[in-house]
Amino acid sequence: MMLVNGRRQCFLDAADRAVSYGDGLFETIAVVRSRPALWEAHLARLRLGCQRLGLPTPELDLLDSDARALLDGVDAGVLKIVYTAGSSGRGFRRGACSPTRILSVSPLPEYPRAWWQEGVDVRWCALRLAQQPRLAGLKHLNRLEQVLARAEWSDPRVAEGVLLDQNECVIEGTMTNLFVLVGEQLFTPMLDEAGVRGVMRGRVLELAAELGIPCSEVRLSRAQMLEADEVFLTNSVIGVWPVCRLEGHSVPQRTLARRLQARLQADEHVAVWV
Amino acid sequence: MMLVNGRRQCFLDAADRAVSYGDGLFETIAVVRSRPALWEAHLARLRLGCQRLGLPTPELDLLDSDARALLDGVDAGVLKIVYTAGSSGRGFRRGACSPTRILSVSPLPEYPRAWWQEGVDVRWCALRLAQQPRLAGLKHLNRLEQVLARAEWSDPRVAEGVLLDQNECVIEGTMTNLFVLVGEQLFTPMLDEAGVRGVMRGRVLELAAELGIPCSEVRLSRAQMLEADEVFLTNSVIGVWPVCRLEGHSVPQRTLARRLQARLQADEHVAVWV
Repeated sequence: MMLVNGRRQCFLDAADRAVSYGDGLFETIAVVRSRPALWEAHLARLRLGCQRLGLPTPELDLLDSDARALLDGVDAGVLKIVYTAGSSGRGFRRGACSPTRILSVSPLPEYPRAWWQEGVDVRWCALRLAQQPRLAGLKHLNRLEQVLARAEWSDPRVAEGVLLDQNECVIEGTMTNLFVLVGEQLFTPMLDEAGVRGVMRGRVLELAAELGIPCSEVRLSRAQMLEADEVFLTNSVIGVWPVCRLEGHSVPQRTLARRLQARLQADEHVAVWV
Repeated sequence: MMLVNGRRQCFLDAADRAVSYGDGLFETIAVVRSRPALWEAHLARLRLGCQRLGLPTPELDLLDSDARALLDGVDAGVLKIVYTAGSSGRGFRRGACSPTRILSVSPLPEYPRAWWQEGVDVRWCALRLAQQPRLAGLKHLNRLEQVLARAEWSDPRVAEGVLLDQNECVIEGTMTNLFVLVGEQLFTPMLDEAGVRGVMRGRVLELAAELGIPCSEVRLSRAQMLEADEVFLTNSVIGVWPVCRLEGHSVPQRTLARRLQARLQADEHVAVWV
């Protein structure tokens, strides 16, 4: 099911700047009991992204009414918003911009329950993320790096690949953010040069603070990750996955990932009950 | 006028991976007397891009018949090919890939004739291109850097902005490649870490060799560009523009840009007669 500028259709002007240049942003949102989880946080990130890309501010009441129309009767699933610079002629210059909003809903992806309960296998990606401060943190539509990184493996037992930047700093997974616990301290990569500032990452930072666990954004090395007491991944659809194996090596597990899962479920911020 | 997978339509499946991730490539081609100029070179670059991105090889006979259908009766203009990974569900993984080809034709852009004859004003862009060897050289659909760079100026007298990478090496213009003549030697930036390997850039390299002018790909500094005896820009639509001013400073002009223009016109490789 899809709405394009509020109309029930599944096609788009082929001259849209999303097609030509990836000129736009997106949000991926868990649907819990017919409601978009962490809706305000997703809209806030979309608004911030528009400011940074110079796009007109999205009309929040239209996004809200589109979402309501789409989610009527949908108990659980994934709501996606694509917000583009709209159609234009050839050329990188935007000119007068009339954005396109595309909202769609799809079923929850079917991952094994063990990935929440026992943890996931992850691997290192060979691709190194480019550093571009002007785009870092944004969930923009230029995603060829993630497409190429995700094409590096096909083993369905490997849940995620971890990406480093060109300075060999750990940044994120192809579709997740990443946290490491060292002793009683939580760390997550700085995303000022590369990476996506995930909404679930933000929620986990808040929850860690509520639990009294100090958390800092750091330049994280591969070695630091290998020495961690616990590693977990986050995104808005999965919530939190503990990591149990990294490139074949066991990763220790404590209880933080499971505590965060419980809290996210209690708050109805995730769609998968585990 | 537009053909999507050979059908006369102007819309696209909104679930196409070009929309979601910029997962594809494009070509911009001058139309000269109803024929696509440097057609073989454009197809070769598209093919190479598909190999590097892991996309199926385009069916050249279909591109050829689409182009013939579109260009019938079009004396001069711009033919654009967008070649995408096709539609898919959510997720970076491509799965079985059924590419989409979009061919469209538009009028030639209306630039002042003086830009060919007397040269263009250019400026330095503030944005620094990210370095990503996996994507360098390709004319892919992830173009937010160019969109942001082009938004840096609105003065219509400034024809182009010059982009540097994060190491302060000169790479290209937002829509052009760049050459500098120093004495009797021609230089153009290496594009192994950033930039688009333009088809017209390739043709100019060939022409320089034919004219007996040695040309090398180098790491080019801003200072070297400021000390050049001649600077010019190239792309498939404009051919060659001499640069006469750079950020307000005069740039010397010799005759190479004009000689190349004459040669490209004689070969019918450009659509603008100057």
